[in-house]
Amino acid sequence: MGMSLGPNQYGKAEIRLVTVDRQGPVHHLKDVTVSTSLRGHLERTHLTGDNADVVATDTQKNTTQAFARDGIGEIEDFALRLAEHFTGSFEHITGARMLISEHGWNRITVGGTPHDHAFSRAGDEERTTAVTVQDGQAWVVSGVTGLTVLKSTGSEFHGFPRDRYTTLAETDDRILATAVTARWRYASTTGINWSESYDAIRRALLETFATKHSLSLQQTLYAMGEAVLEARPEVAEIRLSLPNKHHFLVDLSPFGLDNPGEVFYAADRPYGLIEGTVRRDDETGSDPGLAWYSLPEF
Amino acid sequence: MGMSLGPNQYGKAEIRLVTVDRQGPVHHLKDVTVSTSLRGHLERTHLTGDNADVVATDTQKNTTQAFARDGIGEIEDFALRLAEHFTGSFEHITGARMLISEHGWNRITVGGTPHDHAFSRAGDEERTTAVTVQDGQAWVVSGVTGLTVLKSTGSEFHGFPRDRYTTLAETDDRILATAVTARWRYASTTGINWSESYDAIRRALLETFATKHSLSLQQTLYAMGEAVLEARPEVAEIRLSLPNKHHFLVDLSPFGLDNPGEVFYAADRPYGLIEGTVRRDDETGSDPGLAWYSLPEF
Amino acid sequence: MGMSLGPNQYGKAEIRLVTVDRQGPVHHLKDVTVSTSLRGHLERTHLTGDNADVVATDTQKNTTQAFARDGIGEIEDFALRLAEHFTGSFEHITGARMLISEHGWNRITVGGTPHDHAFSRAGDEERTTAVTVQDGQAWVVSGVTGLTVLKSTGSEFHGFPRDRYTTLAETDDRILATAVTARWRYASTTGINWSESYDAIRRALLETFATKHSLSLQQTLYAMGEAVLEARPEVAEIRLSLPNKHHFLVDLSPFGLDNPGEVFYAADRPYGLIEGTVRRDDETGSDPGLAWYSLPEF
Amino acid sequence: MGMSLGPNQYGKAEIRLVTVDRQGPVHHLKDVTVSTSLRGHLERTHLTGDNADVVATDTQKNTTQAFARDGIGEIEDFALRLAEHFTGSFEHITGARMLISEHGWNRITVGGTPHDHAFSRAGDEERTTAVTVQDGQAWVVSGVTGLTVLKSTGSEFHGFPRDRYTTLAETDDRILATAVTARWRYASTTGINWSESYDAIRRALLETFATKHSLSLQQTLYAMGEAVLEARPEVAEIRLSLPNKHHFLVDLSPFGLDNPGEVFYAADRPYGLIEGTVRRDDETGSDPGLAWYSLPEF
Repeated sequence: MGMSLGPNQYGKAEIRLVTVDRQGPVHHLKDVTVSTSLRGHLERTHLTGDNADVVATDTQKNTTQAFARDGIGEIEDFALRLAEHFTGSFEHITGARMLISEHGWNRITVGGTPHDHAFSRAGDEERTTAVTVQDGQAWVVSGVTGLTVLKSTGSEFHGFPRDRYTTLAETDDRILATAVTARWRYASTTGINWSESYDAIRRALLETFATKHSLSLQQTLYAMGEAVLEARPEVAEIRLSLPNKHHFLVDLSPFGLDNPGEVFYAADRPYGLIEGTVRRDDETGSDPGLAWYSLPEF
Repeated sequence: MGMSLGPNQYGKAEIRLVTVDRQGPVHHLKDVTVSTSLRGHLERTHLTGDNADVVATDTQKNTTQAFARDGIGEIEDFALRLAEHFTGSFEHITGARMLISEHGWNRITVGGTPHDHAFSRAGDEERTTAVTVQDGQAWVVSGVTGLTVLKSTGSEFHGFPRDRYTTLAETDDRILATAVTARWRYASTTGINWSESYDAIRRALLETFATKHSLSLQQTLYAMGEAVLEARPEVAEIRLSLPNKHHFLVDLSPFGLDNPGEVFYAADRPYGLIEGTVRRDDETGSDPGLAWYSLPEF
Repeated sequence: MGMSLGPNQYGKAEIRLVTVDRQGPVHHLKDVTVSTSLRGHLERTHLTGDNADVVATDTQKNTTQAFARDGIGEIEDFALRLAEHFTGSFEHITGARMLISEHGWNRITVGGTPHDHAFSRAGDEERTTAVTVQDGQAWVVSGVTGLTVLKSTGSEFHGFPRDRYTTLAETDDRILATAVTARWRYASTTGINWSESYDAIRRALLETFATKHSLSLQQTLYAMGEAVLEARPEVAEIRLSLPNKHHFLVDLSPFGLDNPGEVFYAADRPYGLIEGTVRRDDETGSDPGLAWYSLPEF
Repeated sequence: MGMSLGPNQYGKAEIRLVTVDRQGPVHHLKDVTVSTSLRGHLERTHLTGDNADVVATDTQKNTTQAFARDGIGEIEDFALRLAEHFTGSFEHITGARMLISEHGWNRITVGGTPHDHAFSRAGDEERTTAVTVQDGQAWVVSGVTGLTVLKSTGSEFHGFPRDRYTTLAETDDRILATAVTARWRYASTTGINWSESYDAIRRALLETFATKHSLSLQQTLYAMGEAVLEARPEVAEIRLSLPNKHHFLVDLSPFGLDNPGEVFYAADRPYGLIEGTVRRDDETGSDPGLAWYSLPEF
């Protein structure tokens, strides 16, 4: 009975990296978490423990830190630089996947003026990228996570099938809340203004969540994805993972009180989880290839 | 050998409560987590299991939800209402401690205009209060937590004693980062504009962190507390718990690179933890009493 | 420019379900977390908000709870029952993915005897299954997570390539520690004693980790997978995700002390992450199909 | 308006320390997390930034690691050694608080035999100590945390007062589950076999939880504390913090099913939280002093 090594990758996860640009009195901060993974012809270490092909994960960390000396810049560019370095420098390393999350900071306002070098953390929201390079091809999948949103009206849910196990009441007015995780695949890896694209996509997601009257979270999801594809031709497809963070109306009738959509409790678990993809029909020249392979979300 | 019941309390922890004020087309949201605790003559249930004095924690939850029907308002007022209800309604309940955290939401901007009923979560920062009522007396200790701040220069640390176990280098320029947990005791429980006070205290903490040139995190802590007491006569004392979130300069010299304060790694553990109190000397009429008893932070 | 709905699924995540078998004085406990997902022809709700095909996630939760009334049994069987129910009961639901984690409990020992109905939680380790049903086919991928192990010797790491960014010293004796996440695909979905298989696989993983002299974590990973395939013919392939939980030797020389492998600090981040697959070469009759699709780990 | 520095302390939190005793082929592992705090005359650094009295938190970490070179031994002894070192070595450091958590590991069994140097993590449960030294006095408060227990019968709750806000049904059979956090103060700091005491206290807590028929969680709490004081004369008092991890019976009647105590859902939040103290009446020679000051739990 023979057996063999199947798909594999290895790297250094969660390198916490902060850079300060001190070129002038006004400092600029970048705060990222980088996870590197390398792929290739790695049978030797798995089968015999011969590490001649194993670029140490410590070396991957060092390289990440050293490359930051020239500035991180846009996380997509930094990830591409790293992935191309690793695949270009070692014979048996044929592929690389770089995951980067960027954590936001705002300047502290002092007397109405943004401070030169003092910052406060912007919240849980993170800008992400997952860059894959394999045998000379490259893919960029960027995203956002931790973008928690809620609308207090403008959401209905009814018309779903009722069977023996259905007890849920239909509603024409509920709270709809979710924490958006979105990932979008760019049709190309060059010629894109990553920041501008990110800002526009984030805005399309938020504005559509706010303004789309919702008959289901699925409908909202599709509308959010559609708005992104309409606004940004550089995006080939987008995947969204939307937990339905249930806010249940409290029954106050035992206490002689009504509750016309005013008092809710926010439940932890279980929660609905709606995941879907919106993609262009006529997409050309942008094979998804390995872009999505082994990404943690749907 | 006799033994007896010592200090005790019980309640319902982490009641997740969201209210929507729908009086007009522009909705207003309150999102709080409430933990109730009652104290009193509770020997019977402990010693014999006779629950005649035990206001069920489920009842405490129901009461919290029912009271929210009239609006939560300022968290300090809501906590006082609840504490006075419990101590006033049950013979053997002589004390109550209400802990409330308020989670912030911002309106989503659509086409430059704040939306009527769509919101995005403001981050990890929380406004807190701990209200204690005992035998007719009341204390309010409010605070902020999760306020993460960083300054990329303007921080030194040197002149500390060196013994056999000291290896830390002195520095005249380092990153200083912390996640502020502050709690301040109000000298009174009435006649205070809680929101205005909170905003001014938060501003004093942030501005002092930003502008105070720091020779130690202790010095920064004291200056932050001092600024609050100077700005707000209604505050009798303030306690701060400041983790020193270390950002270590990466040694890039093995790679032939300098690193003049540009590339750092953000360490998780261990971290410094600096805790201290600033209080008025001439304080009158505001006995701390039970204000701080059993609070989770220093 | 046309666009359309791509891959999608939805369901109820993290249904916390505990059952007590009270058939005799000795109670038996099952503690599981179930996440359901349904797939199918769901364009209507996404494109128009018509929910006629949307089995509500609340109904999915109710069904899970109701099915538990007959006992959960083995988690693989329970997941298959649920998946087959959903795909068999609703016209447009063609696929289902059930994720179940089982949390262990031990009986409390009283005076040397296991108690009839009192239990203590067994730790973080969880037995998992991911069952997929699509168009009449079924796949079972079971696993273990949170199995944290450490060996204090018997681990080396050397012979790796050295480039400009390599500073790691070679070592012939280090601590090797990891938290095993393993998932294995069964070649069939019937005729398997799931519990016996799980116990034997878990034992093979642990014994191989303990006894295999390690020249790299990759070598250990492969040996662990190989041991499972050798011991259990019902397993077609196994995937392992092994964080390298670094334990760094503390440099005590500044204090005039040696440190011959005795004092370590356990680092949080970054950590190595080694992921790989071991599979049979001659495998027949067990197409992986959708077995691994969208699973959260590699 | 004068103000001044009130209570304060500082130190290094969460030093992750692992030691291997390699004196023979059978290795012994200690895995602890240490948090140090120093107290004293620290006005200078707070008021002026003069750090001449500030033993750097980095030095506190180094000292902890260096002291581990002689073995950690019992965590109470290690904490006392550290606290006495710090208070004895620096003029303005008059007090120290050391918090230590010990994480358990079991030997991996290979072919029925415990392995010499391979271990698996024992779970979330931790043995803790909080040692305080001030002006030559010392106190030891040890404990356990993360001890999650459940009984599937033998628990009732009724007879509680009913007011306008009470909806909870009385029950004479429910699941009772909690995660025990206990801290006990030793009457002395010398002459105690810490391990033996810990094992006996843990056993008394578990056995009492299992065997005491419960009319309220308060009654169970008191009985657990009482059992510890009865069994162990070296313990002066014990404090318990017991979350009531609610397991609610699922209403299966809409599906035509009964549910005689068999199917439950485990709720996350809110949860009851019961906290209390059991202490000796006739206690002599063991002033609690600063033993409990600023401990994180009740």
